[in-house]
Amino acid sequence: MSRLGFRIEAEAPGSQARAARFTTLHGEMITPIFQPVGTQATVKALTVEDLREVGSRMLLANTYHLMLRPGPEVFAKFGGIHRFMNWDGPILTDSGGFQIFSLPHSRAITEAGARFQSYVDGKMHLLSPETSIAVQKAIGSDVMMVLDQCVPSTVSHAEAERAMLLTHRWAKRSFDARGDSPQAMFGIVQGACYEDLRKRSVDALTAIPFDGYAVGGLAVGETKSEREDFTEITTRLLPRDLPRYLMGVGTPLDILEAVHRGIDLFDCILPSALAKRGTAFVSRGKMQLRRTAYKFADEALDANCDCSTCTRYSRAYLHHLTKADEVLGWKLLSIHNLVFYHRMMAEIRASILDGTFAAYRATRREAWAGTDEDTPVRTGKRRRPGRISPDSSVNVGDHAELVLST
Amino acid sequence: MSRLGFRIEAEAPGSQARAARFTTLHGEMITPIFQPVGTQATVKALTVEDLREVGSRMLLANTYHLMLRPGPEVFAKFGGIHRFMNWDGPILTDSGGFQIFSLPHSRAITEAGARFQSYVDGKMHLLSPETSIAVQKAIGSDVMMVLDQCVPSTVSHAEAERAMLLTHRWAKRSFDARGDSPQAMFGIVQGACYEDLRKRSVDALTAIPFDGYAVGGLAVGETKSEREDFTEITTRLLPRDLPRYLMGVGTPLDILEAVHRGIDLFDCILPSALAKRGTAFVSRGKMQLRRTAYKFADEALDANCDCSTCTRYSRAYLHHLTKADEVLGWKLLSIHNLVFYHRMMAEIRASILDGTFAAYRATRREAWAGTDEDTPVRTGKRRRPGRISPDSSVNVGDHAELVLST
Repeated sequence: MSRLGFRIEAEAPGSQARAARFTTLHGEMITPIFQPVGTQATVKALTVEDLREVGSRMLLANTYHLMLRPGPEVFAKFGGIHRFMNWDGPILTDSGGFQIFSLPHSRAITEAGARFQSYVDGKMHLLSPETSIAVQKAIGSDVMMVLDQCVPSTVSHAEAERAMLLTHRWAKRSFDARGDSPQAMFGIVQGACYEDLRKRSVDALTAIPFDGYAVGGLAVGETKSEREDFTEITTRLLPRDLPRYLMGVGTPLDILEAVHRGIDLFDCILPSALAKRGTAFVSRGKMQLRRTAYKFADEALDANCDCSTCTRYSRAYLHHLTKADEVLGWKLLSIHNLVFYHRMMAEIRASILDGTFAAYRATRREAWAGTDEDTPVRTGKRRRPGRISPDSSVNVGDHAELVLST
Repeated sequence: MSRLGFRIEAEAPGSQARAARFTTLHGEMITPIFQPVGTQATVKALTVEDLREVGSRMLLANTYHLMLRPGPEVFAKFGGIHRFMNWDGPILTDSGGFQIFSLPHSRAITEAGARFQSYVDGKMHLLSPETSIAVQKAIGSDVMMVLDQCVPSTVSHAEAERAMLLTHRWAKRSFDARGDSPQAMFGIVQGACYEDLRKRSVDALTAIPFDGYAVGGLAVGETKSEREDFTEITTRLLPRDLPRYLMGVGTPLDILEAVHRGIDLFDCILPSALAKRGTAFVSRGKMQLRRTAYKFADEALDANCDCSTCTRYSRAYLHHLTKADEVLGWKLLSIHNLVFYHRMMAEIRASILDGTFAAYRATRREAWAGTDEDTPVRTGKRRRPGRISPDSSVNVGDHAELVLST
């Protein structure tokens, strides 16, 4: 008995893309959707009113950070994250596994789970399937994720298999730990870039009645075409009638291609992280507002955008705020970037529903050709070894930006 | 012929306090008023919509910072700061003198002006009466300030006199530099804590037909009672029918006492600067949201406040945001603190207009007794010698905070 509604409304001809009516404890929406990242129970620099205004319907929050601060006992007292942060829409929580495994971190992994040191107070913590789910139950998210072991997508077959098998055992323990909670839970398919492992992982995890499945172990070292291939290999194996989630992806073009391969749910730090660096998504690619070329630019950021930033502020003002490191610049660009993402998702949904997804995809692919590159985005902040902070917690993916020559 | 309207509507019995209809190029309001500080053409962490919502009517912007970035040529291109930052209310600009003189800074002062090195690009600049007014004209503020020489209020009589005389010569040059600009201009009375100098300064400056006068040279080292005494000494000498401005002051109690002594206009960084540190003004004093005592606190910040922060968020959430250094915490506390200031100003205006200011003052003095102390507020940021950044640019005054024992 699924804790979620997921009814497919349309499927795109010649594509795995589908639009579905997705029902959660905190509301219903049509997929595919993009979830902004609210790492610490706030999407950086934005209020919940801003999120409503830009069109956000569902958020992601990070269990790893929230278990350390404010801690599950605070969520228990408040009856969950929704009231705590004043957001009444659905929320998905990750398991904390990504932060533990994919970033430089002092940790010890055993069958039981991962021991690590808190960056908040230096105390040792155990992240196990049971503790991850206990924290996610306290947070009260609409969708919980199982704890999985993340490994780089470039590991050997033997290592990928070992991590996958541990992930399967942890998935079962995560499922059992949920008990009779009304919160939904997704399994996470692992197996790196090995087709046989992906198949075994889907078989093992679909034997457990999860409410949906994530394609895990991607956007961690593989090429763009490997990512696309293994997304499709996995979605073709997954049940048609359950939601599919591609964690931490990605650029607009990544999302478009993943929708084409059958993905329904996305999250990514990119719109906020690039906003902080002064980068805006615009019709023809990305724009670096810090560039001196914009010092006197008296036009809107994007003439094709009707967001509150584009209708009220000039490129010159955004250039000034960005150069001066004013948080208003971060906020105004976050609003624009999220409107850009949500508008693209709305266009994708509309094109699937009216049978024009193939044409939409072709047009967008052409417009955005060359705007993604397989080079890591530098965040401009050095990681402290053995510790990770909320700013370094989310992989911004293997995507560089194109500087417009306007 | 004044560039401002200033018609006194009521004077409080037994007090110098008055309420006046104050008319600028960008709107009319009743004084006394508090101006939030928009150092770099943005009040930190807030949008102009937020400022309207909290009740801000007039802002201060810092000429020193704006002349260095984005530079007067950008304001010239945009026809001024109002369109640049999308704020259609009145704006007052300081002269840049405070930043040059009162903070550790490499500079050379001559009769011509002050030479200093830009913290933005390392270039040398001259801040003279003529350049300050030229920049303020480009910014297009409703009220410009003359360039004055600021000295600590504890200097010797000889040094205070020398700085005062230079200030008078610069005031005349500033006035001449305005020409036929429609922008209003205020003179700044100097003279440190010497009654004879204050008298001479008022005499010299009122000989020039400024549109208003600021009481300068206070909140820079003197005691609270000296500040109050010299505010009153100066306001008693100033013309009754022109607006009076006490620059950079202060705490709620400072403002109340200065209104009693005849001041009409205020600005201070305190509501924003304390918000950044996690401090909120509440009915009984100040509250340090970082304190562990608030970790589980499920009540509003201030039960007596109807601002959007108090009606929507718990102390526990504000504690979490503050501890986690999320800019949303800064923003939510800025909103609350500015509502607190603007509500106090509204109460002050109402009490002057209905003849109850003395009673209002007595009640407030009692409620806030002990919430100001003569200890400098530490900003938690070390100043780089020879350079000043926008964060260190405004004196938060000689005010410590009281930690509530809730």
